[in-house]
This record gives sequence, structure tokens and C-alpha cells, in this order.
Amino acid sequence: MQTLHFVLEENMLEVDCPCVTPEVVLKASGHVDKFTDLMVKDEKTGTCYRADHLLKDFCNEKLQKDLTISTEKAAEFRHVLAVLDDLSAEELGAKIKEYGITAPDTKNPLSDPYPFNLMFQTSIGPSGLLPGYMRPETAQGIFVNFKDLYYYNGNKLPFAAAQIGQAFRNEISPRQGLLRVREFTLAEIEHFVDPEDKSHPKYSEVANLEFLMFPREEQMSGQSAKIICLGEAVSKGIVNNETLGYFIGRVFLFLTRLGINRKRLRFRQHLANEMAHYAADCWDAEIESSYGWIECVGIADRSAYDLRAHTDKSGVPLVAAEKFSEPREVEKLVIAPVKKELGLAFKGNQKNVVEALEAMNEQEALEMKAALESKGEVEFQVCTLGKNVCIKKNMVSISKEKKKEHQRVFTPSVIEPSFGIGRIIYCLYEHSFYTRPSKAGDEQLNVFRFPPLVAPIKCTVFPLVQNQQYEEVAKEISKSLTVAGISHKIDITGTSIGKRYARTDELGVPFAITVDSTSSVTIRERDSKDQIRVNVDEAATVVKAVTDGLKSWEDIWTSYPHHSSESADD
Amino acid sequence: MQTLHFVLEENMLEVDCPCVTPEVVLKASGHVDKFTDLMVKDEKTGTCYRADHLLKDFCNEKLQKDLTISTEKAAEFRHVLAVLDDLSAEELGAKIKEYGITAPDTKNPLSDPYPFNLMFQTSIGPSGLLPGYMRPETAQGIFVNFKDLYYYNGNKLPFAAAQIGQAFRNEISPRQGLLRVREFTLAEIEHFVDPEDKSHPKYSEVANLEFLMFPREEQMSGQSAKIICLGEAVSKGIVNNETLGYFIGRVFLFLTRLGINRKRLRFRQHLANEMAHYAADCWDAEIESSYGWIECVGIADRSAYDLRAHTDKSGVPLVAAEKFSEPREVEKLVIAPVKKELGLAFKGNQKNVVEALEAMNEQEALEMKAALESKGEVEFQVCTLGKNVCIKKNMVSISKEKKKEHQRVFTPSVIEPSFGIGRIIYCLYEHSFYTRPSKAGDEQLNVFRFPPLVAPIKCTVFPLVQNQQYEEVAKEISKSLTVAGISHKIDITGTSIGKRYARTDELGVPFAITVDSTSSVTIRERDSKDQIRVNVDEAATVVKAVTDGLKSWEDIWTSYPHHSSESADD
Repeated sequence: MQTLHFVLEENMLEVDCPCVTPEVVLKASGHVDKFTDLMVKDEKTGTCYRADHLLKDFCNEKLQKDLTISTEKAAEFRHVLAVLDDLSAEELGAKIKEYGITAPDTKNPLSDPYPFNLMFQTSIGPSGLLPGYMRPETAQGIFVNFKDLYYYNGNKLPFAAAQIGQAFRNEISPRQGLLRVREFTLAEIEHFVDPEDKSHPKYSEVANLEFLMFPREEQMSGQSAKIICLGEAVSKGIVNNETLGYFIGRVFLFLTRLGINRKRLRFRQHLANEMAHYAADCWDAEIESSYGWIECVGIADRSAYDLRAHTDKSGVPLVAAEKFSEPREVEKLVIAPVKKELGLAFKGNQKNVVEALEAMNEQEALEMKAALESKGEVEFQVCTLGKNVCIKKNMVSISKEKKKEHQRVFTPSVIEPSFGIGRIIYCLYEHSFYTRPSKAGDEQLNVFRFPPLVAPIKCTVFPLVQNQQYEEVAKEISKSLTVAGISHKIDITGTSIGKRYARTDELGVPFAITVDSTSSVTIRERDSKDQIRVNVDEAATVVKAVTDGLKSWEDIWTSYPHHSSESADD
Repeated sequence: MQTLHFVLEENMLEVDCPCVTPEVVLKASGHVDKFTDLMVKDEKTGTCYRADHLLKDFCNEKLQKDLTISTEKAAEFRHVLAVLDDLSAEELGAKIKEYGITAPDTKNPLSDPYPFNLMFQTSIGPSGLLPGYMRPETAQGIFVNFKDLYYYNGNKLPFAAAQIGQAFRNEISPRQGLLRVREFTLAEIEHFVDPEDKSHPKYSEVANLEFLMFPREEQMSGQSAKIICLGEAVSKGIVNNETLGYFIGRVFLFLTRLGINRKRLRFRQHLANEMAHYAADCWDAEIESSYGWIECVGIADRSAYDLRAHTDKSGVPLVAAEKFSEPREVEKLVIAPVKKELGLAFKGNQKNVVEALEAMNEQEALEMKAALESKGEVEFQVCTLGKNVCIKKNMVSISKEKKKEHQRVFTPSVIEPSFGIGRIIYCLYEHSFYTRPSKAGDEQLNVFRFPPLVAPIKCTVFPLVQNQQYEEVAKEISKSLTVAGISHKIDITGTSIGKRYARTDELGVPFAITVDSTSSVTIRERDSKDQIRVNVDEAATVVKAVTDGLKSWEDIWTSYPHHSSESADD
């Protein structure tokens, strides 16, 4: 489904990179130094806790259960909750001390908070000298392979590469079932685009979509999410650019086609303090579940940060080029230090001064040029020497020259939709579940209303009664379903047909084929419980047409004779 | 393809278990203690080598390049190569010393061989106290979940569970491209079966297959692999049982359908010394490549070993039960120690004696019964006391009683086909590659003959010349291919059509749709270069029918008008 909806639709490249990652890659990405949570330890037992979780639980409990607290105190707790993600180790530690928070299990005192890296560490090869980590996300594998991917795409932008695979985070305290686990399936798309042109050719296909959005401003002013037209959000600049908007729209379509309830799905924009400093904009698809609103997909414009970081660390330029149809004349600033004069003036420090001069940006250089022309000399800070030096007019020539350029070389921006597959599946279970009374009315039966496209088992095959002829027909149908690639279950037990229907409703199986004659069979749809009658040799084809999405059940319902069930307890 | 051929065909259960595995699981499986290779270190630089590789390389080089060695010496080297896998650390070390083998890179002396565990180790959770490993195979995840899987299958045998995922082995010296890597994709099937009935209901579907087999006996007597009928191999007992034979046949069909050359595929039986002591029989599907015959799939009858190992370690019985339709009367041996008499005789040791008596197997108990009846007393060894005691007739009653049993409880056997996906794909590349002269005859063009079912890209779409009308048609066709789920590439560059064909032949793309009018287009088949003409709106349907395997190219060829290419250099 993911492959169909995203990879095929956009002709994305697909990669499958290793999970065990050499340290140097995750040094470059920043994970070795910064992928941490703040942890406190029970000072007696050594049990570990996430510092922010303890503070959060404390404030929530006070707010919910302690009726004696003052309005000021309540406001303070609410403020702490609001800024929780921004607190430093020292600030967190101070709050924990101030509130007298102790270890939840033992009431022992807690250590000061300190950073704990969330990556699983290991050692690559037999020497023990090459540290490695289990990847905390799949994206880095795509970034380090950018050069090859760009080449495979015929050195053309934009293009996207996708990867589905395991990611690993050594959580301090896993919790909430599938929602915070130490190993999970991640699906990430890295869409590389020219930073000067973030339009998208298929943007118009999603621009009219309307759904729940929760922009930054509404969050800051205490309003709630509201239904907004995507195209309007983009044209008003609420969503940063067309490509980001396109993927927000595609994610909306993906999740609702899976079976996520559109009323319990919202796109929430990151607040300024949530976003990495380099990100241009970021929206989370949040799905409401019994645990609250859960971040399931992140869609971020990460600018050129990742490719630049790997370029800097590896020395391999991860860039793209736009070839001009005709060479363009451009003015280029040329800074030419006069090494002889600089040598005479600065001796052993000459090299540092030369490098500092060459590193000036255009504005600095033009200012120096003006100063040298008017005053003949200028104070100049050389960082690597830690002091100012005096630059004279004869020591550097600064000029603008006209040059012909054949191409523009730049670091592409990356727009990244990142899917937490386990979280999406968990929410899908909640949104798909309902109960309905049994025919006798004496019990509530469980049903999952998974759409045919995503139901793990598409179809069941039941002989109505135990009888060799019916069983033969059931096996024939099972064979033709296998040939058609339809996952199914065959149940030839003597259990009542009503019980067998109820069992498979509980597994979310959308269709049940019941063999009640040797020439024709019935097909029952799970949610309506409607049944049609088809010839034995048509059964697999009909089920395949609906599960492949070529026909809807309504199409089928109008094309075949209906069957009204006389049988027992369904 | 794998899912279709195996999982759907047999209605297998599918699981997706974590890669990071707690130590206790791999203790039970034996990997923590025994999953090692023998390693030597360069004593000066610390560089690590696999001890057996160094000895193997030394012997091979002597045999191939040293013309001065005696016949006796040559025989010795050949013997060493033959028994290489059986040598202990001491024996390997002695040979390395005897032959004066040094570090290949530096000629420095080497350390004695010592075992190096091939699992990547890590630490689970923040405490640092819970060691874990990256799984070295996917099978253990299925074994530890046996109880749930058996329940999902309605507590019925036989059934199989399948898992595809990453496996990790910290190889001392990775080599040979995709063939020995530290992280690879493994697909494993664990088929659980009653050890007393290893028949398979679909065995007859493969029994008539004939292919290259290399039984143990032929290997021992220096013969080569020969074509054998699978059914004959099973009935003669060369292959241990029907279920094992069934999977050998299915693996043969799978590999040849992928595009593996059946003449370069053989099934080699493990020699007695290669097989784990518990295995009943084991066959490797070996594929010939430029590296020689490569083990790509292992198909083993592992008996009840794995489930027993996890039962012992966890205390959770991983067993199945066969319910009898009617209770069966069985004779059961009953050993009833008379505690009062034993207490008087053995005081504080009474408990040890009671336990030892109850632990007797049937034969021991019957011998004791006979001895007590004839002699009135008997010497009896109590292990836990480390001595013999004298048991008198009044101290224990041993009898056979009739009991009604409702079921038979047993540990299932497991038949395991295990696929190294990277190795299979590597061999597929070699077997699929060929070259043919260009039309002008001035160069050799590369082609991969991937069958449509497995080709990563199924189809390309080319406008014959750059022209807006043709490009529109090409984009229409691209859209309908996306809807049909067909991976494809569209190339609207002005490159000559011959060059574009050659490019996609090199990628193994089986079909090319060329737009040379706005009403109909041509479809070219890669290997024959034959072209047919179809209406624009039929193009996607025709390609889908062939790639889904519903029709062959021959079917298509006979149903549509042929097109003889006049265009340029193809």
C-alpha cells in the first residue's frame, strides 16, 4: 500500500541500507553528540527514569488530584508542562529538587539529570576498535548515498528516494504498547529539490483537499485545530511551500485510505521551539487514540542541513547542478591576498591571515575594500590567531570580475515525510474497531472494519456444512484465490456458520465465501452483512476485483443476485 | 514473489520479530556459547584473521602454484582442506605453526587461534545490565513465539510460520561482495510437524520433478552431482522424509522461476560431520557462480531440537497435542516410593532417594521390580548423593496401571528452509547476464534477462521523438501503469530510440512501450526484440497481464499485430 501510494506514484528510487552504521556517519548527522534524553537514577537502586517524564507526571498529578493548590501554583505547573521540552539538564534538576520529586518505586532520592544517548552501541569487526550504532532512523542511509541516487536519476532534480526498515532507539522507559518501543518500522521519503524552486508538478491534484489543520498561530493563541483548504494554507504561507503542501496532502489521502477516521486526524505545525534551527517548516500528522493525539507521520522541510553536514564531514560534495542552456555572465568577487607583503608583515602568522582574508563573505570584503580605499588600512579580526591585525592597502586586492558560468551548483533541500508504521497500525486498530449485537441480542460481537486493501486476510472460505462435496469446492476456490494472490483462510470445521462469520469479523476479514451448493456460492461483506450469489468459478475474480480496488462492493452488489441468509444465527 | 510462492501457497503465518534479542534467548539456542569462528591475531599489529581461511589459502596456494611438492605432501594438503571444518582450535594452531603460516599483510607471527563470537553485542535499556545481541538468524523469533502461533493456527499441526528480515553476523573478514557480509536479508520458514507423521498433503505435486542432486554417498565416493527424480530420492530414503522432500521441490521451483539456470543449481546433502548432531537431514541449494558453488538456501529437518532448547531454558512447554477421537487405554508405569520406610532408612537423605527413584525410566524401574521380587533388595545409585544405597522391597512399589488418555502431547519437529536473499540475488545477476552485438556490430551490449515477475522495473515508456503530443500520450500511459501497480520509467529525452532500448536492456527491463502515434503504440520484448502494436488504452493492461504471469509473451505475440522496427540502430 505504502509502495503503491508513494513509491510508484512518484517514481521514487528505493534503497535498503544497513542497520549497523559506522560511528562517523552518525557523528556527521549529529546523533552521536545530540541524540539524547535526560535521565535520572534512583541513588540507591540505580533504576533509571526519564527526568522529563517524572516532572510531567508530578505536575499532571498535582493539577488533577490536588484540590488544595493555589491558582498561582496551578499556573506554574501548567507553565512547566508547556516548556518541558525546552528545559536544560540544570533547569530540570532544579525543578525536581524544588518539588521534592523522588523515585516513583522506592521514594529514594534521585541523581542530577544527565544525558543518555538513545542509540544502541555495538562494535564492528573483530578488532573492537570500530564503534558502530544501530541506526536511529533510516534517513541517513539515503543522505550518504545521495551522489549515486542523483546519478541513477540521470542527474536531475527533483527526485525522491524511499526506504522502509527497522530503526532502533534504546528508550529509557518504553511505554504505551506499540507507541514507544525500542525497535520499530520506519518508512522515510527524502524528496530532493532545488531550494530556489519548491513547486511541485502534481500540486494541483491535492490543492483542493480540506482537512483538520492546526497551524502554529492557532496553537499559540489557545484555539483548536480547524478545517482548512490545503491550497489556501499554502498560498497564505501557513504551509511553507508547494512541495511540502503536496506531501501533506498525499499523507492525508494515504492515512484516510488506510481507514484512519478523518475527524480524528489533524496536521499540527511545529512551534518554533520544537523545530530544529535549520528546518524551514514541519507538520506532524497526529491521530487521536485512547492515548490522546499521537504523532504518526512527520513532514518536514529540512532545508539543506543533512547533505551539508555529510559534505562537511566526508569532504565529498553532495550537490546538484543546474546546467544553463547558455553560459551566463556573472560578477564574481575575487579576493587576492598579496602573500609577499603579508609575509613581511606577519611572518609565521601569514598563513592564518591569508585564510581569514579568503574566508570573508561578500559584504565583509566590500566593506574592507571601501575602508582600504578611503583610509589606506583597516583593523581585521583573525579568529585563528585570537586577535586583530592591521591590513594595509598593498596587502590584498579585492575586485569584482565578470565570469562565464555554465551551471549553478547548489546543495538540494530535502522534504522528508517520515512514517512510524507501528503507530499508524495501532491507531488503525482503534479507528477500525466496533461492536454490534449478535442476532440473538445476547452478546456484543467485535468487528474490525479494515478496508479490503489493507486487511491482512482478505477472504475466508467456509463449506456451509461438513460434507465432502462442499469441502472439495471450498478447496478449489482456495486454490484459485492462491493463484490470484489473495490471502485467505479456509475453515472446514463443523462450527455453526454464524460463529464462523463472527470469528472472522473479529479478524477484520472483509469477505466470506460460503459454499452451500456445488455450482454457486455466496459472498458476504463483513460490515453490511449483505450477501450475493456467484458461480463457483467467479468467486476468486470477484474478491480480487474488490481487494485490488478495481471495483467497490457497491459495484458488485448491483451486478449479482442477492442472497438472503436463512441460516441460523447471523 | 517469495510471499506468493511460499507464504500464500501454504497459508503460512507471518511474523516480524525484533532484531535486538535479549541474551537469554540466544543462550537457550546455543548461539552465545557456540556461534563462533576461530580467529588469529597478527602479534604485532593486532590485525585479525580467520584461522581456517589462512590455512585454506595456504594449502590451495601450495597445491596450485608450488610444483616442487611431493605427492605425499599434496595428499596431506588435500586432506587438510577436506577436514578443515572439523579442526579444533588446538589442531588449527598446530597446523599453522607446522606450516609456518604468518600474517598475510605483514609476515608477522600469529597468535594461537581462539574463538570469536560472531554476534554483534549491545546493551538493552539504560542500566547497562541487560546484554543483548543483534539476531544472527530470524528463526529464534519464531521458536520463542511457538505457543501463540500454534494457538493462531487453531492448535493444529502441521503449520508453518515465515519471517523475512535482517540478520547480523560480525564476520572476521567479509569478502566476495554480497556473499559474505555482516548484515543481510534472511527469509526463514519454520514448518512444524508431528515427528511421527512427516508426510505432506501436496507432496505429489513435486514428486515427479527431476534435477541435480548430490547425495552424501556420491560426495564420499568422489562422484559428482546427478539428475535424480525427487520422488525416487524420498522413496529410497536418500531424502529423509516427504515434508523435507516437498520443500526441496518447492525451493527448486522457486529458484528456477526467479531465473536461476537449472543446470547451475544443485541440491547437496550435508555430510555427517557438517550436520548438527540433532538434525535428521539437511540439503543445501547450491548455485554455481564465478565464485564456485554457493550455498544459497538450506533445507533442514532440525528435529525437535529448537523447541526443546527453549522449553528447557524458559520452563514454558513448547509442545503440541494430538486429541484422540476416543480416549485410549494405555499402560502407565507407576513408581510409588514408601516415604515412611525410606525416612527410617535414610533420614536426611530421604528426599534425594525419593527423587532418584521417581526419575527412573521404564526399563530401570522394571529391572528394579524384577530384582526386588527375586532378591528382596537391590543396590541403587543416587547421583545427588554420589553413592549407592540399598533399596528393600518395602521401600518402593512399582506397578503398571491402566489409564485412559485423551491426547498425546509431544514436541513438534521443525523443517526449516532458510534463504540467503542477497546470495540468491547475486547469483541471479550472474545467471541473467548476457551480451549481444549492437546493430552496427561495433560493440557488445549488456542485457539482463530477468523474468517479468522479478524485474525491478517492468516497463519503460518512450516517445519515439520529442514532440508534445507523443509526450502527452507517454504520460497518459505512465499514469495507467501506476494505477495498475506496474513499476516503470518514462524517458522523454531526445536520445535515439536504439540507445534508449540498450539502456533499459542493461537494467533488465522486460518491456518497452514506444509512442510513435497518438492512437497506437508498440511494445517491445527485451530478449527477442520482437514488437507488437496495441491501442494506447490497452498498453498497461497487456504489460500487466504478462508481468502478473497471467499470460506469456508468446500469448501476446499471437494476439496482436506485429511491428517491424524501421527505426535506426536497434
